[in-house]
Amino acid sequence: MTSAFSFKLLATDGGARLGEIGTPRGTIRTPAFMPVGTAATVKAVFLDDVRRTGADVILGNTYHLMLRPGAERVARLGGLHRFMRWDGPILTDSGGFQVMSLSQLRTVTEQGVSFRSHIDGALYDLSPERSIEVQNLLGADIQMQFDECTPFPATFEEAARSMELSLRWGERSLAAFRERAPAGRALFGIVQGSVYPELRTQSAQALVAMNFDGYSIGGLAVGEGQNAMFETLSHTTPLLPEGKPRYLMGVGTPADIIGAVERGVDMFDCVMPTRSGRHGQAFTWSGKLNMRNAVHMEDMRPLDETSECPAARDYSRAYIHHLLRAGEYLAPMILSWANTNFYQELMAAIRQSIREGNFAELAARVRGAYPSAESHTHAATSKG
Amino acid sequence: MTSAFSFKLLATDGGARLGEIGTPRGTIRTPAFMPVGTAATVKAVFLDDVRRTGADVILGNTYHLMLRPGAERVARLGGLHRFMRWDGPILTDSGGFQVMSLSQLRTVTEQGVSFRSHIDGALYDLSPERSIEVQNLLGADIQMQFDECTPFPATFEEAARSMELSLRWGERSLAAFRERAPAGRALFGIVQGSVYPELRTQSAQALVAMNFDGYSIGGLAVGEGQNAMFETLSHTTPLLPEGKPRYLMGVGTPADIIGAVERGVDMFDCVMPTRSGRHGQAFTWSGKLNMRNAVHMEDMRPLDETSECPAARDYSRAYIHHLLRAGEYLAPMILSWANTNFYQELMAAIRQSIREGNFAELAARVRGAYPSAESHTHAATSKG
Repeated sequence: MTSAFSFKLLATDGGARLGEIGTPRGTIRTPAFMPVGTAATVKAVFLDDVRRTGADVILGNTYHLMLRPGAERVARLGGLHRFMRWDGPILTDSGGFQVMSLSQLRTVTEQGVSFRSHIDGALYDLSPERSIEVQNLLGADIQMQFDECTPFPATFEEAARSMELSLRWGERSLAAFRERAPAGRALFGIVQGSVYPELRTQSAQALVAMNFDGYSIGGLAVGEGQNAMFETLSHTTPLLPEGKPRYLMGVGTPADIIGAVERGVDMFDCVMPTRSGRHGQAFTWSGKLNMRNAVHMEDMRPLDETSECPAARDYSRAYIHHLLRAGEYLAPMILSWANTNFYQELMAAIRQSIREGNFAELAARVRGAYPSAESHTHAATSKG
Repeated sequence: MTSAFSFKLLATDGGARLGEIGTPRGTIRTPAFMPVGTAATVKAVFLDDVRRTGADVILGNTYHLMLRPGAERVARLGGLHRFMRWDGPILTDSGGFQVMSLSQLRTVTEQGVSFRSHIDGALYDLSPERSIEVQNLLGADIQMQFDECTPFPATFEEAARSMELSLRWGERSLAAFRERAPAGRALFGIVQGSVYPELRTQSAQALVAMNFDGYSIGGLAVGEGQNAMFETLSHTTPLLPEGKPRYLMGVGTPADIIGAVERGVDMFDCVMPTRSGRHGQAFTWSGKLNMRNAVHMEDMRPLDETSECPAARDYSRAYIHHLLRAGEYLAPMILSWANTNFYQELMAAIRQSIREGNFAELAARVRGAYPSAESHTHAATSKG
């Protein structure tokens, strides 16, 4: 525990970094994967169980929470930590990505974005200042600058215009944050620039000059493919200061994470573990299993008998298969929990391998189980 | 633990009975409420948590399980206890009730019932012999005779014909059970006869003469109303032997249970705690709460701060309300668990009050919170 936000680089193995983020609410061991708690819940998993998987930090979505239950309401009720019962650090995004992908009738101006809620059509404004205000009302420990998520594909000119707007919004976000945020909270800048190295360079250099507490890499995993994502990462991370954490937003598959860690990324979030769980898929050390497949019908083995997670260890594949076929709640409950746990096991293994200097071996093992063809493209939905 | 099925009457308070059912898999404290595990899961609740609520026994539905995953499959996989991970006693119904309410194109003959599955239209036969075979394949500790659930309303003649058929099926069930069931398992006869005292008398006397291990009271909570149900119970329970357990099938609200315990009933099952939980309703000692109601929107009190159940104690009403509005899995998860726990708290309070001779006080308290107008009518659905 520290009273200020901090980052310590503990070890490296090739490009992979082992570190620790200090926050007043606890330490985040990096590389870290943040379970996504879109609407103040990691879907279909009790937070007590999320905690037991070893997650140090979870993510909340500013867009969803400002629409429902509302940022001012959450603040009146004591903040997001108390509302959802999570006493560790919470990171919030800025709302920018979901505004672009979910809201209706939006108008983007220099000032910010006006849009209608995808829930009830109500009119909202979001700007750098309001985004920071919302994130402060929620009580987020790690906040994101308001940005425009550049669509993909974008021409160089479109990507440049969008990146420059995000830079100006980053400056305003930082001013609002410095004016309002209580001590110990952190604000990250977001590097944009699509797949254009020149723009990524401009974006990174300008943000670094503003001296954020950490740097996110945005606008990836939006359809560019794993190769382009990795190339952009290889270009971008060397532009960022060693002594600050780096967060690749919305990524990804186990192989995506391995490749990004290799390129110096420290933090990740993705809906994959829970969304795949709701769709009947299980992540294991042997690869992804489709539990609806009839091959599991009479298989009494658990997903992973060596796991310490009850969801992975205690329920047979035959039983999970049956629950899925019967449309029972317990199937997504078991799979979302087991997948959330698998991602934490993966991150723990990554951290251990960096510490021990054998990250490459782990990387090969994970790539064997998760072919790169299955790279993740994230898409925000109302279901998070 | 005992190696044979047994029932001990420990105390009475008025008509209310405190007892203990001994089975090779553990003791059932009565009056007992059995959480319903229709398709090998108590909907939206982990069985580890069901166990922690204090439930001694759970119920499985023969009809659902024979259709999916299939009784022979469950047997191959080691039986229902292993399949669903419950090592305490399991009671199964005979399938009769669900065949009547769920299946399609059914034909009832003296031999049994032919019907088509509501899941995939496949053709099945169910008879006293097959029902017992299925219950044995599942490994049920307490089994039910195959019966015809008399529709309501029924004329005296219809009810008489149906009751007599159930008696003949009871005799065949008993013969099949005695021939096949391993030691320590129990078979209950089911008293039918609709709301006609004369038929209930005939049914009870004939079944008692056959010497079942316990007696169920069927064909109630099907639309006759709480008064008619209580009148039928008042008439029927005195016809049953003191030394055998009595099970009122498919009942009910807290007030239904209080009234039935008062009339000498020992065992209950009902989908209410979990079904109501999925629909946003919470059972508490102050009555039933509709958690969708806006009154809960900023109420940071838990459902019951004095409860030992995390679901009732740890989550604020404001949070549960938010989860329901957002359509999040966690809402039915919390409410189904909390309601399952409330029913066990109710039964524990009932048992304690009988032991201490103040059941009437508890009854008045529960009736205050649960007006009789809300008596439960059960209806089988494909969702159990």
